Amino acid sequence: ALFQQLCNHFSSGPLSGVRVLLTAGPTREPIDPVRFIGNRSSGKMGFALARAFVSAGATVELVAGPVSLATPAGVARFDVETAREMEQKVLDRVTECDIFVGCAAVADYRPEVVADQKIKKNNEQMEIHLVRNNDILATVAALSKAPFTVGFAAETQAPETYAEKKRIAKKIDMIAANLVGASEGGFERDENALTLLWEGGQKRLPLADKGMLAEQLVTLITERYENRYPA
Amino acid sequence: ALFQQLCNHFSSGPLSGVRVLLTAGPTREPIDPVRFIGNRSSGKMGFALARAFVSAGATVELVAGPVSLATPAGVARFDVETAREMEQKVLDRVTECDIFVGCAAVADYRPEVVADQKIKKNNEQMEIHLVRNNDILATVAALSKAPFTVGFAAETQAPETYAEKKRIAKKIDMIAANLVGASEGGFERDENALTLLWEGGQKRLPLADKGMLAEQLVTLITERYENRYPA
Repeated sequence: ALFQQLCNHFSSGPLSGVRVLLTAGPTREPIDPVRFIGNRSSGKMGFALARAFVSAGATVELVAGPVSLATPAGVARFDVETAREMEQKVLDRVTECDIFVGCAAVADYRPEVVADQKIKKNNEQMEIHLVRNNDILATVAALSKAPFTVGFAAETQAPETYAEKKRIAKKIDMIAANLVGASEGGFERDENALTLLWEGGQKRLPLADKGMLAEQLVTLITERYENRYPA
Repeated sequence: ALFQQLCNHFSSGPLSGVRVLLTAGPTREPIDPVRFIGNRSSGKMGFALARAFVSAGATVELVAGPVSLATPAGVARFDVETAREMEQKVLDRVTECDIFVGCAAVADYRPEVVADQKIKKNNEQMEIHLVRNNDILATVAALSKAPFTVGFAAETQAPETYAEKKRIAKKIDMIAANLVGASEGGFERDENALTLLWEGGQKRLPLADKGMLAEQLVTLITERYENRYPA
C-alpha cells in the first residue's frame, strides 16, 4: 500500500490519482473436493492491463482467479477461486475505485450442491445441476455510485453483436469484444484481437501481443473516462 | 529417442533396459469451447516419478494432461487433454512397455454432448449430462500381454480401504493410496504421503517431498517387478 502511494505520488501519467480495480483469470466452481468446472482463461490479458494501468500512473488493485502468473510490480493482488469469492472481493473494494475493469472469465453457473467427499463413479451416468452466478459487471454498474465500468465479452461467434447487447443490457460504459476458440487469438494465447465498443463509438484493435493491446485499451479507456469526468 | 537409447545404453541402474510408460496430471473434459470439467491434480507426483525412473536407468515415456511443468531430462513426453486422448495414447504405447504407472487423475466422467459454440446463459439453471470414461488402468491390466501395472487412488476418506478394493477389482499389481483434500498432502502440493499396496503386502510412506517419495516408490516397484519377473 505504501509502495503504491509512493508510486502514485511521484507518478505523472494520464491516470495519476485514479484508482483502478481489475478482475482477471478464470474462476473455478467446485463439484467436489477434487473436481471443478473451469474455463480456459489464462489471465494474461487482465495482468497485461494491470501493468498498463500502472504505467499510466493509476493505483491498481487486481482480483485474480487461479492462474500461474506473477503479480505485476506496483499492483495489489487478491487471489480468489470461485465466482462468489470474486464477487465478494470486488464488492469489498469497488467503493474505493474510479474505474472497474471486469476482465475475468467468471463462471456463469456453479454446481448447486458441492459434495463433501469425492464423488464415487458408481453409475454409468451422472447429472450435474447448475445454478446461475450473479453477474459481477451488471452488479457493479447498477451501484448508486458506480465507477466507470469496462467489461469483456469472450464469444465464439459474432463477438461485436453479442458484446453490444451485453453492454446495453448490463448498462456498462465500455465493452471489449473478443473472439475465442479461433485462430484470431483469445484464451490461452499471448496474442489477441479486440473490438472496443461504447455508446456512440467503437474501435477495432487488430491482432497484437496482449501487452501492446493492453496499452491501446488503457489509452482508449482513459479517453472515454476523461470524456465522462472532464478535469 | 537417440538420447534415451544412449542413456539406456550407458545406464547401470536397477531398471536398465526396462521400459516404463507413465501418465500424469489431470484431464480436461470440454463442456463447450471455453468451459471444461477439470481436477486439482498438478502432475507433480507423476513428473517426479518419471524423473526417478530415469535415475533408476529405465527408458521412460510420459503421457501428460494439461500441466505447467517442464519435461524431465531423458523423458519422451506426449501431451493430451481429455481422458479419451490419454487412453488412446496409452493404448498406442503400452505394447512397448514393461511397467505401466497410471498416476494421472483421469476424469471418470465426461459431458455426453460438447457444444460447438459457447453456451449462452439464457436460463437460471442448467444440467450437464455426464457419461463414464473408460478406466485406463483396468483396460491396461486386462490386456493379454499386460505390463506390470501400478495405479494411484486419490481419495478424500479411507484411502487404503478404497485403494485395496480398486487394486483387486482392476486386477492391477500395485496401488498407491493417497489422501487428498486434507492436511496430509496430495493435490496441488509439493509433499505427499502414500500407502503402497500389493497382493500380500503393503508399505506406508510418510509425508515427504514428492521427489523423495518418488524415489521410494520406484525402489518398491522395482522390488515387486523383479519378484514377478526374476532375472
